[in-house]
Amino acid sequence: MADRGRLLGLGVGPGDPELITLKALRLLCAAPVVAYLVAKGKKGNAFGIVEEHLRDDQVLLPLVFPVTTELLTPPRSYEQEIAGFYDEAAKEVAAHLDAGRDVAVICEGDPFFYGSFMYLHDRLAARYDTEVVPGVCSIVACASVLGAPLVYRNQSLIVLSGVLPEAELEARLSQAEAAAVMKLGTNFEKVRRVVAKLGLTERALYIERATMASERTLPLAEVDPVSVPYFAMILLPGKKWQG
Amino acid sequence: MADRGRLLGLGVGPGDPELITLKALRLLCAAPVVAYLVAKGKKGNAFGIVEEHLRDDQVLLPLVFPVTTELLTPPRSYEQEIAGFYDEAAKEVAAHLDAGRDVAVICEGDPFFYGSFMYLHDRLAARYDTEVVPGVCSIVACASVLGAPLVYRNQSLIVLSGVLPEAELEARLSQAEAAAVMKLGTNFEKVRRVVAKLGLTERALYIERATMASERTLPLAEVDPVSVPYFAMILLPGKKWQG
Repeated sequence: MADRGRLLGLGVGPGDPELITLKALRLLCAAPVVAYLVAKGKKGNAFGIVEEHLRDDQVLLPLVFPVTTELLTPPRSYEQEIAGFYDEAAKEVAAHLDAGRDVAVICEGDPFFYGSFMYLHDRLAARYDTEVVPGVCSIVACASVLGAPLVYRNQSLIVLSGVLPEAELEARLSQAEAAAVMKLGTNFEKVRRVVAKLGLTERALYIERATMASERTLPLAEVDPVSVPYFAMILLPGKKWQG
Repeated sequence: MADRGRLLGLGVGPGDPELITLKALRLLCAAPVVAYLVAKGKKGNAFGIVEEHLRDDQVLLPLVFPVTTELLTPPRSYEQEIAGFYDEAAKEVAAHLDAGRDVAVICEGDPFFYGSFMYLHDRLAARYDTEVVPGVCSIVACASVLGAPLVYRNQSLIVLSGVLPEAELEARLSQAEAAAVMKLGTNFEKVRRVVAKLGLTERALYIERATMASERTLPLAEVDPVSVPYFAMILLPGKKWQG
């Protein structure tokens, strides 16, 4: 694969531009092509994080999602449209790699922790030399901002998506010593109900867009469900050991 | 708290010195006192990660564990000795803070993700201005090195300690869509048995000391239990979506 470019998946951290690693920054600055997944009409969180470091001689390759969370009329389905989109996006990236240009795909948080980069990786990593640079992921960023140690000693941690059905959330949270429920958005009210039912409200911490400029924390009871963004999280830190 | 120093918990990442964040490095370089938890007779992983950045005019404050994993003769117990140790360590840190000096406690990985810093935090954060800088934690570092996307879309992730009893490991792993089992060491054989019993051996990935100079990956079946370090992990990545 000597003359082909390398595929780089760079974790750029949770939002604060200073939470990028030295390694991700070095590889970003050395890459002739910088690709990023972004919603239609948006600048993109990952792009915003690294923007100050980009140079004019770097090619920008925005990969624009055709759909995000809107409802589609059958026979259109999210799964199908998004799979087709990743196929096309992978081709765009591959064209640069085939021409011998390294492509740095910038990824909010960590590339392999619920990252959209994974779908490009799965389409390209077998064919191209690939390196993934881990990043600070959202759960530890949230815990830091909240000043809440997350897991002690031999406690277990479970990370859940708020999209899960209520009964499943309840079953899983009831067994957790520490937990993070991600992807709240329109799922917030359901998750808050489960937390209350399990008697965990006192322990639960709520945070939006940790380490971003628009970061916000407030008591769970005071959250207006209508205002909850996708990048919001409920943390249930483990009980203090030697408290 | 104007004349007192600030307590800083700095995540310095999983091992590769380049996986420190810009923010942790900035605060590290600005701190007059650099503290770190370390086993008797060792240099310490966190210290090794940041060593190249330290200056002669910074005070080093090693906080040396009196016990690690050795067996103690009753009435001595690990819990009691370690609690007393953290009390003393917190006092040493507090002495600098009271004198108006910021103390940067360097933490391998992330400070709040199974980090020893949490025990200092819990003793000091209520009394001193405190900031915690999140770091790249071991689970995402392991996934990156292994080239293994960890969790897709709405999959759940469970993080377990290898110290857990066999039946509990089995119960929890059987429900996991993706999992990481940390703290292997002498628990390795038990964990490998559980993984095999659940039919997960094919999906399981083994790695030691991810991103450190002594990093090693090998097939689970080939691991010699006697050689497994504490900083080894078994990952069970989520099944590929749109595979």
